[in-house]
Amino acid sequence: MAEEEVQVFGFRSGPFSLRVELALKLKAVDYQHIEEDLLNNKSDLLLKYNPIYKKVPVLVHNGNPISESLVILEYIEHNWTHNPIFPAHPYDRALARFWAKFIDDTVVPAVHKISGSTEEEREKAIEEAQKTLEPLENELGNKKFFGGEEIGLVDIVGLILAGWIPAIEEALGFELLNTHKLPNLKKWTEEFVNHRVAKQVMPQKDALVAFLKNVVLNRKN
Amino acid sequence: MAEEEVQVFGFRSGPFSLRVELALKLKAVDYQHIEEDLLNNKSDLLLKYNPIYKKVPVLVHNGNPISESLVILEYIEHNWTHNPIFPAHPYDRALARFWAKFIDDTVVPAVHKISGSTEEEREKAIEEAQKTLEPLENELGNKKFFGGEEIGLVDIVGLILAGWIPAIEEALGFELLNTHKLPNLKKWTEEFVNHRVAKQVMPQKDALVAFLKNVVLNRKN
Repeated sequence: MAEEEVQVFGFRSGPFSLRVELALKLKAVDYQHIEEDLLNNKSDLLLKYNPIYKKVPVLVHNGNPISESLVILEYIEHNWTHNPIFPAHPYDRALARFWAKFIDDTVVPAVHKISGSTEEEREKAIEEAQKTLEPLENELGNKKFFGGEEIGLVDIVGLILAGWIPAIEEALGFELLNTHKLPNLKKWTEEFVNHRVAKQVMPQKDALVAFLKNVVLNRKN
Repeated sequence: MAEEEVQVFGFRSGPFSLRVELALKLKAVDYQHIEEDLLNNKSDLLLKYNPIYKKVPVLVHNGNPISESLVILEYIEHNWTHNPIFPAHPYDRALARFWAKFIDDTVVPAVHKISGSTEEEREKAIEEAQKTLEPLENELGNKKFFGGEEIGLVDIVGLILAGWIPAIEEALGFELLNTHKLPNLKKWTEEFVNHRVAKQVMPQKDALVAFLKNVVLNRKN
């Protein structure tokens, strides 16, 4: 097989970029990370490769650019079939896709709503996000990961919960996941960040807390 | 092969349900349509099969329910591989998924914004929707369908444009697609509704116009 060129245009503190990087790491695919300065100076290549959304992540495989993290994950699974991240059975694949989409369409906006809330709105936003997380809590059940014994599609898409929620909780001083209300998800966040591959790509919590505090601070000024 | 049971819980005037029905028709898969009364009386089965969103479409295959039209289309392609609706090459598949997601995330909300706009807001909403449609116009180019000579994933997801935009235009009295601004898409809507299979499932324009006028009228009252 000819040598492959795999590049990820990403953002180190960005959960969407990390989905792509984690999937490649799980499959032991070598790639080059190209850090984008999203706030101040997007590169010409990013604008060329993702002219519609001008966002990371973009996977460039042998010169062909692909945008949108869920689309990229499908491509990665199709191209590098070893260490599968999708379930084998078609019905299980459909369920995994459903939950991945649920995280993006429903959970992520609910969590964003907390971090964008005023202090008066916060309690209600937290309650709503907890309610939104309940179906995921039930879906996870007693499994170690959504993918079973190994990290799979839903875990990868859900890394925003494993890495960012604990950091947002600390940065903003509230509690969303706890052993009383969402014990399975709470346990899962710990399993996730300690997973032998995930811990190589996930940002350190302290760095993330500092980053988030800075974002919130700048927003207030 | 054992006999299969394929049911679609849908809504005859609903573009998301029709995606699923069109994909099954293109593959000549027999199925039972179960009409849901979404406004007044959702069935217990719908609530059981899609407890999260309580929405159509739901595909039930041998007793296993799947929700979310894009997820269902992936499942249909995987299960009934003849008459493929996805491109064969992995990169082309990724692009088709990107455009399908673009329609749902970006185009559909822009079109909704028009139908929900006041008369004062309308002109601006139309201009914005036209701008949103430009990348699709360029992607289509001179091809008959997004899928080439045959209807493919992007066409199926885009049926909301082919069937509903002309009906919304007539019901509300404005012009979004025209031979001057978006000539490729304009031509495509005509090709689409005349396609030998699509025309079997697409609602008649007159019926749709009447339905939409009724919805708008009820909203005003």
